[in-house]
Amino acid sequence: MILRDPVHGLISFTGPVASIVARLLDTAEVQRLRRIRALGLASFAYPGAEHSRFAHAIGSAHVMQRYLRRVQALARELPESDRIDDGSAMVALAAALLHDLGHGPYSHTFETVLRDSPPHEQWTSRILLDPDTEVHKVLVEVDPRMPQMVERLVHGESPIPHLARAVSGTFDVDRCDYLKRDSYMTGVSYGLLDLDWLLESLRLYVPEGAAASGLAVDGNKGLTAVEGFFLARLYMYRQVYLHKAVRAAEYLVRGLFRRLLEIGPQPGTSPAMAKLLRGQTLEVADYLRLDDRALDHAIAQYTESRDEVLRGLARRLLHRRLFKTMQLRPEVDSELAQARLDEALAKAGVQPAYLGAIDRVEVRAYSEDPREDQGLMVLRGRGQLRRLVDVSPVMHGLSREVYVHHRAVFPPEAGDAVGAALAPMT
Amino acid sequence: MILRDPVHGLISFTGPVASIVARLLDTAEVQRLRRIRALGLASFAYPGAEHSRFAHAIGSAHVMQRYLRRVQALARELPESDRIDDGSAMVALAAALLHDLGHGPYSHTFETVLRDSPPHEQWTSRILLDPDTEVHKVLVEVDPRMPQMVERLVHGESPIPHLARAVSGTFDVDRCDYLKRDSYMTGVSYGLLDLDWLLESLRLYVPEGAAASGLAVDGNKGLTAVEGFFLARLYMYRQVYLHKAVRAAEYLVRGLFRRLLEIGPQPGTSPAMAKLLRGQTLEVADYLRLDDRALDHAIAQYTESRDEVLRGLARRLLHRRLFKTMQLRPEVDSELAQARLDEALAKAGVQPAYLGAIDRVEVRAYSEDPREDQGLMVLRGRGQLRRLVDVSPVMHGLSREVYVHHRAVFPPEAGDAVGAALAPMT
Amino acid sequence: MILRDPVHGLISFTGPVASIVARLLDTAEVQRLRRIRALGLASFAYPGAEHSRFAHAIGSAHVMQRYLRRVQALARELPESDRIDDGSAMVALAAALLHDLGHGPYSHTFETVLRDSPPHEQWTSRILLDPDTEVHKVLVEVDPRMPQMVERLVHGESPIPHLARAVSGTFDVDRCDYLKRDSYMTGVSYGLLDLDWLLESLRLYVPEGAAASGLAVDGNKGLTAVEGFFLARLYMYRQVYLHKAVRAAEYLVRGLFRRLLEIGPQPGTSPAMAKLLRGQTLEVADYLRLDDRALDHAIAQYTESRDEVLRGLARRLLHRRLFKTMQLRPEVDSELAQARLDEALAKAGVQPAYLGAIDRVEVRAYSEDPREDQGLMVLRGRGQLRRLVDVSPVMHGLSREVYVHHRAVFPPEAGDAVGAALAPMT
Amino acid sequence: MILRDPVHGLISFTGPVASIVARLLDTAEVQRLRRIRALGLASFAYPGAEHSRFAHAIGSAHVMQRYLRRVQALARELPESDRIDDGSAMVALAAALLHDLGHGPYSHTFETVLRDSPPHEQWTSRILLDPDTEVHKVLVEVDPRMPQMVERLVHGESPIPHLARAVSGTFDVDRCDYLKRDSYMTGVSYGLLDLDWLLESLRLYVPEGAAASGLAVDGNKGLTAVEGFFLARLYMYRQVYLHKAVRAAEYLVRGLFRRLLEIGPQPGTSPAMAKLLRGQTLEVADYLRLDDRALDHAIAQYTESRDEVLRGLARRLLHRRLFKTMQLRPEVDSELAQARLDEALAKAGVQPAYLGAIDRVEVRAYSEDPREDQGLMVLRGRGQLRRLVDVSPVMHGLSREVYVHHRAVFPPEAGDAVGAALAPMT
Repeated sequence: MILRDPVHGLISFTGPVASIVARLLDTAEVQRLRRIRALGLASFAYPGAEHSRFAHAIGSAHVMQRYLRRVQALARELPESDRIDDGSAMVALAAALLHDLGHGPYSHTFETVLRDSPPHEQWTSRILLDPDTEVHKVLVEVDPRMPQMVERLVHGESPIPHLARAVSGTFDVDRCDYLKRDSYMTGVSYGLLDLDWLLESLRLYVPEGAAASGLAVDGNKGLTAVEGFFLARLYMYRQVYLHKAVRAAEYLVRGLFRRLLEIGPQPGTSPAMAKLLRGQTLEVADYLRLDDRALDHAIAQYTESRDEVLRGLARRLLHRRLFKTMQLRPEVDSELAQARLDEALAKAGVQPAYLGAIDRVEVRAYSEDPREDQGLMVLRGRGQLRRLVDVSPVMHGLSREVYVHHRAVFPPEAGDAVGAALAPMT
Repeated sequence: MILRDPVHGLISFTGPVASIVARLLDTAEVQRLRRIRALGLASFAYPGAEHSRFAHAIGSAHVMQRYLRRVQALARELPESDRIDDGSAMVALAAALLHDLGHGPYSHTFETVLRDSPPHEQWTSRILLDPDTEVHKVLVEVDPRMPQMVERLVHGESPIPHLARAVSGTFDVDRCDYLKRDSYMTGVSYGLLDLDWLLESLRLYVPEGAAASGLAVDGNKGLTAVEGFFLARLYMYRQVYLHKAVRAAEYLVRGLFRRLLEIGPQPGTSPAMAKLLRGQTLEVADYLRLDDRALDHAIAQYTESRDEVLRGLARRLLHRRLFKTMQLRPEVDSELAQARLDEALAKAGVQPAYLGAIDRVEVRAYSEDPREDQGLMVLRGRGQLRRLVDVSPVMHGLSREVYVHHRAVFPPEAGDAVGAALAPMT
Repeated sequence: MILRDPVHGLISFTGPVASIVARLLDTAEVQRLRRIRALGLASFAYPGAEHSRFAHAIGSAHVMQRYLRRVQALARELPESDRIDDGSAMVALAAALLHDLGHGPYSHTFETVLRDSPPHEQWTSRILLDPDTEVHKVLVEVDPRMPQMVERLVHGESPIPHLARAVSGTFDVDRCDYLKRDSYMTGVSYGLLDLDWLLESLRLYVPEGAAASGLAVDGNKGLTAVEGFFLARLYMYRQVYLHKAVRAAEYLVRGLFRRLLEIGPQPGTSPAMAKLLRGQTLEVADYLRLDDRALDHAIAQYTESRDEVLRGLARRLLHRRLFKTMQLRPEVDSELAQARLDEALAKAGVQPAYLGAIDRVEVRAYSEDPREDQGLMVLRGRGQLRRLVDVSPVMHGLSREVYVHHRAVFPPEAGDAVGAALAPMT
Repeated sequence: MILRDPVHGLISFTGPVASIVARLLDTAEVQRLRRIRALGLASFAYPGAEHSRFAHAIGSAHVMQRYLRRVQALARELPESDRIDDGSAMVALAAALLHDLGHGPYSHTFETVLRDSPPHEQWTSRILLDPDTEVHKVLVEVDPRMPQMVERLVHGESPIPHLARAVSGTFDVDRCDYLKRDSYMTGVSYGLLDLDWLLESLRLYVPEGAAASGLAVDGNKGLTAVEGFFLARLYMYRQVYLHKAVRAAEYLVRGLFRRLLEIGPQPGTSPAMAKLLRGQTLEVADYLRLDDRALDHAIAQYTESRDEVLRGLARRLLHRRLFKTMQLRPEVDSELAQARLDEALAKAGVQPAYLGAIDRVEVRAYSEDPREDQGLMVLRGRGQLRRLVDVSPVMHGLSREVYVHHRAVFPPEAGDAVGAALAPMT
C-alpha cells in the first residue's frame, strides 16, 4: 500500500507488520475521519485549511513507522525490555492511526460546546473497545488483546515507556504530523519542523536507577531540531489555532449550541445531536454518525429557522459574517472584562447576552511532561544527561513564554458600546 | 486585504481597483464556494485533496492580478485598444474570481449525472445577471454595465481579445491556479508549472492585418515554461483527474442519481435536488442551495434507505467501498465492451445493469485554441512569429498525444464474470 | 557518517558496507574533487552554479545506496545471480562515489580543448588502478580485486548487468544526482525529477531467454516519473548546459588553449599543463595537480601576458566580457556558416581567425541504450513488457526530439560584419 | 536584465533606476566577487557551500529593490523627508550591491589573519572612492556625488535614516539575503526567514520629537517574521558559521599566515600578499588582485614548501586533514585553558606552539541597535509603540541568549596530551 502525501511524500505500508494499517484504513470508523476537518473552522481564516483528520491519521501512522525504524537502529543500545517486537510495532502503528477516532464535528470545537458530553479521548476508547465496530474486529483478528492494548497506548500507557511517550507525550507522532500538515495547508511557518533531523537526533537512555528508557536528544545536533519543533508549535497557536477569526467563528458555534440547549432540537438537528441536546446518553453507533456533515447540514437548515437567534447565528456561519473581536491586555481581569462587556451589550440591546464573551486562552510554549521526571533530556558527550531547559536558552525562554490570547468577542452592532467600555483594557 | 495562500504565498488585493475582490469575497455566492470541493471525489485517491473552489477563486483572481501587471509592463508596445484601464481591470479581476460561481455539488461530477440540467457555465451567467444576488449588487454598485461585462468575459468575450484569452483560453488564469493548487494539495507533479517564468515570458503581438493583440511567448526563454504548463496539465489528468479510484467513485454517484431518477426523491433529498429529479426548473435561489453539503447529507441519509440499490450505493460512497475497474486497450470498441460487460453483469446477477459501465475519456495534451488563428504563437528574435507546435518538438509530441482513459467499472461481486468476459480487451 | 545535503536532505553512510564511502572521502583524490566545479563555466550564466564535483560524488553514492535498498526490497523476485551481496554493494557504492575522479579543470571544458589528451574516463581508470593513489590503497585494503572491479563498473561492466546500468546507463545514479543538483543550484526546472517515485516504480525483470535482469519501470505509476527524468535532462541542456553565455565562455577557453599551443607555455602555466601543451605524457600524479585552481591561476596570470591574444582572452574570462553569439537555423550547413564567418572576421580584422567559431551541438532527448536490447522497458499488468517509446507518447516525442544548439560565436568588434554575413542563416 | 536565482526566483533589474545595477555588474570590481566564496571555508563542513559573494551581492540588491517598493507603498504615511526619490533609490541599490566590495580571500577569514591590515569595510570605501576603479566611473557618470553617497550609505550614513538601517542595521538587506542564501546552499534551517511576510509587516514611524522615521514592524502579524529572522541567524551561527570543522580550518589558515609572517613570502605567494606580509601598504589595484584564487594557488604551492610547518598546514588544507577540537564549558577561563593547552602541546612536542589555540566566540542572538534608541520597535493597534523585547518573550529570551563557541583546537598528534590536560574543562 503506497500513498502520495503532500506533506511526507511517498508513504508506504508494506510487509506483514505494516499491513495492519491498510486493513484498518478500510474500516467505517477510520473512513469517517474523512468527514471531520482537522482544523475545524480554521478555513475561515486560512482558505487552504480544509484537510481532514483522515489524512492526519495516515500521516501519524507514517511518522510512527519512521520512529519504529529509528528505535530499531538504536536497538543494540537498548535494554531488552525496551526493544520493539512485531506485536508491539503493530500496536504502535494502530495506536498512531486510531488516536483521533473519537473526534466529533469540527474537531475540538464540538467538545467545548456541550460541556457534559464526554471528551473525544473517551469516545476513542469506547470505539476501540466496542465489539461491534469494524476497527475492533480488525484488531481482534490479529490478537484478542489488541483492542485493549491499542486503547491503553492511545492514552499513553504501555509496558514500553518510550513508546507511550511517542504516542502521547511532549513531542509525539501526532504533533509531528499535525504541525507539519497544518503548516503546509495554511501556508504558515512551513519548514520549521525538520522531521528528518529530529528523528536522526533522537536517543533513548536509561536513567540511573530506572528500568526503562526515556526519550532524549543528541545534544550536539539535536538542539536546533527540538527548538524548531516547539517554535513551530508556538507559531501555529499564534497564527492559526488562536487566530482571531477562527476563535470568533468558534463563538458562533458555541452560541448556536447554547441557543439549542435553550430551545431544544430544531428542524435539521440530527437524531444523535438531538439526544445530546436532551442530555441523553449516546451509543457508540449514534456518536459515529456525528461528523462535520451532520453539523454542516444542521447549520444550513437553521438559516431558515423560525428562531431569530438561531437563524442569525447560522447565517453568520454560512456566509462568514463573523463576530468582531477586540484584543485585551493579558493582565486584564477576565471577569471584570466580562462584566463590562455584558453591560455594553445590554446598552446596545444585544440579546441573548451570551452572544458576547471574553475569550482567554493560555498556551505554554514548552512545559515538561510530568511523566518524564525532568522533561525532555539532552545527551551530551560521554553520556552526560542534562535537562533541555538548562542546555538551551531558547527552550528556557520558551518554558517561560505563555502565549495569552485575550479578546472580547461580540456582535458588530455592539461595536461602539463595547469599544467604549473596554478601551481601557486594550 | 492580505491573505496567506499555501500555493502563491502572500496574496494582497489593495488599492481602489483590487478592492472589488475584497467586496465580492464577502457575498453569499462567493462564500458558497467554500462548500464545494474543487476536485469533487478526488480525495478518495488523494487524501489531501479536500480544498474548495473558494481557495481556487481567490488564487485565480491573484493570477489575474499578476497578468494585469505584466500587461501593464508591456503597455508601451501595445496598441491603444489593447491597454487595460481601471474599469477593464476591475472586470477582469471580477471575472477571474467569479468564473466558477455556477459550480454544483462535487464540482464537475454533478453536471454529468443529470444530463438535462444546464451546465455550470450557464448557472454562472444566471447568478451574475440575477439582480437579487449579492454579487450582482456589488458589481452594479461599481457600474451598472458591470454584471453584463463580467458575464461576457467569463465566457471569453471582451472588447480586449487578449483579456478574453486570459480568462478562458488555452492557458488562462483559471488553469494556472488550479494546476498549481491541485498539484500542491495532492502532492503530485509539484513544480512543473513555473508561473513566474511563464508570466515573464508572456508577450502580446498584433498579427499582420489584425487590429488586436494575440497571446504569445518569448521564444528563447518561454518555451520551457509553456511546455511545463501543458505537461503539468497532462500529468494531472493522468495521475489525478482520471485516477481509477476517482472515476470509480464518480460512477457510484452517477448510479445513485440514475436510481433516484427511477424511484424519485427520497428522505434526505433536498428540495432543490428534488425539483431537479422531477425535471422542474430551478430558480437561482434554489440552485445556490445546492452544494457539497446538500449532497453529502443526502448520501448519509440514503445509507438507511429502504431502496436496496440506493442504500448500497450510498454506503459504498460513505465507507469508500469503490467499484472495481479494469483497464481496456485504447483501441477497443467501447460499445462492444459495454455489451460484453452487460452480459457478464447479467450472468453474475448484478442489478440494475447500469451499475456497470465502460468509462472512456480522451484528453488531448495540447490542442490549439480555435479562436487563436494558429494556436499559441512564439515570438522569435526580430519579431518573427512561429506556431508553438512548429518550434517545440515536445509540444508537437503533445499535440499528437491523446491520453485515453478506458476502463470497465463494475461491482466487485461481478469480478470473475467481468474478468473472463473482458480479458481479451485488456 | 551523516551529512546534510541541500539536495537530498540527510545523507548517512553507516554500517559495515557503507563505511567504505567514509574512508574513500578522506583520500586526496576524492578531496581534489572539491576543486573542480561541476558545471565548469556555467556560473557565468547562473551565479549560483559554483558547486563542486565533490558534492556530486557524495550525492551519487547516496542515490546508489537508495538503489541498492530498492533492489534488496525486490530481491525475492530476482534470480540468484542478480542479487547484491555485501561485496557487490561496496563495489557499487565505491563506483558511484569515484566515477568522476578523472575530471580535469572546469569539468568537461578541459577535455575539449586539448584534443589529444585522454578523456576523463581514462584518467578515472588510471587513478583507480595506480597503486600509489590513496583511493587505490583504501580499496585494496578491503579486497585486492576491488580497484579492478570498481574500475570495470565505472565503465559499465559488471557480472550483475542491472548494476552496470545503474552506474552508467540511460538513467543512472550519476544523472539522478546531477540533474537534481544542477537544477537546485541554478534555480532551473527544479522538481521535475521525482527521485522517490522513480525508485519506487523501478522494476527488474528477466527477459525471455536471458539470464540476467534488465531495468524496467512499473507501467502504471512509473511513466510520469520516467518522462520527468528525461524532460529534466532536456531542459537542463536547453537552459543551462548549452546556455549561450556558457558556450561563449567555453570558446574563450578553447581559444586560449589554442593560443597556448601556438606560443607554448607562458608565465602562470603550471608544470603539468606545460607538459600537456608540449605533448608530453602526464603521470597520474601530474594529472591530479590539474584542477580548477591551476587553470584559474593561469588565467589570472595571463591577464598580464605580453601576448596580446592570450592577454585579451584571459581578461575576457576574468571580467566576464564574453564573445557575442548569433543563433543559426538548425538546418543551416555549419561548414558554410564557418566559411562566411571566417570571411566576416577577416573583413573586420579579427585575428587569429579561430576566435570565431560555429558551435553546433545536438542532444537527443531520449535514445535507447544500445546495451538494453530495446531500451528502457515498461512492465504492464500481468508481466507484459513494452518498450518505453511505444507506451508513452511523450517519450515517443522525446525520442524524436533532437535539440540543436547552433550558434556563431565571435568577438563583439566583428558584430556588424558577422551580422551582415550570417543574417540569412538566422 | 533578468536573472534566475535559486534563492529568490526571478530577479529583474529593469527601468531607468534599476538599470544602474546592470551597469555595475559589468565592472571588474563586482566581477571579482565571483572569486570570493561567501562562506570561506564552510564547504569543509557543508559541501554545498561554494557560493560566491557575487550571487550574494545580486541578492542583496534584489532585497533592496523589494524594500524600496515596500517603502513606496507606505509613502503616504511618511514625512516628505523620508520618501525616496529616484536618486536616493539608485544610491540605495548601488550600496546594497557594492557593500561587500572590499572583502578579501575567504571572506572574513582573511581579515582575522593579518591583524594590521585594514578591515574589509575600509577597502570597500577605498574602492568606491578611487577614481580609477570601474565602479567609481559608473557611479560618477550618473552623478559626481554618487561615489561618496554610496560609500556613506554602505557605512550606515544617509540623510534618510531608515535607509541607513536597511543597508546596515539589525536587520538589513545584507542579512536578509545571506541568511536565506547560506541556508539554501548548506541545507540548514531553510524556511525560517520569511522575507515576503517580513517586508509585508514592515512599518516606518516617526517617534515623538523626532524628525525622521524609524523602522518598526506591525505587532500583530510581524512578530513571528521578526523572531524567525533572529532565530535563523542564531541557527546559522550555531550550525554553520561556528561549526567546529569550519573553525578548525580557519585555524589552519591562521597558523599558515603566522608562519609566513615568521619566514616571509614563499614561492607561490602573490606579489600583493607578499607586500602585506612585509607590512607594506597596498594600493587599491594590488588589493583587488587578492581573491580566493590567489590564496588557493599559494596554498597549493606551499604543499611543496621546504618549510615543514608551512608545508604541513598547506597539506592539511588541501586534503582536508583538519585539526581536532574539544569543546570547553562556556564559563571556563580561556587564558587558563590556553596555558594548559600550551603545556600539553609542549609535552607532546608540537611546534610551533601557535598551532594550538583556544577558540572562543560569543554571539548575541539579539542585541538592540544602538542607533535605534530602543532597538527595533513594534507598532501595536492605534499607533502604540513598544520595544520588541517587551512584546515578544521569544525575543526577550534571545536578547539574553549568548551563544558561546568555546573549543580547543590542536593537531591530532597531541590528542592524548590535550585530552588529559583539558578534560576537567569540558
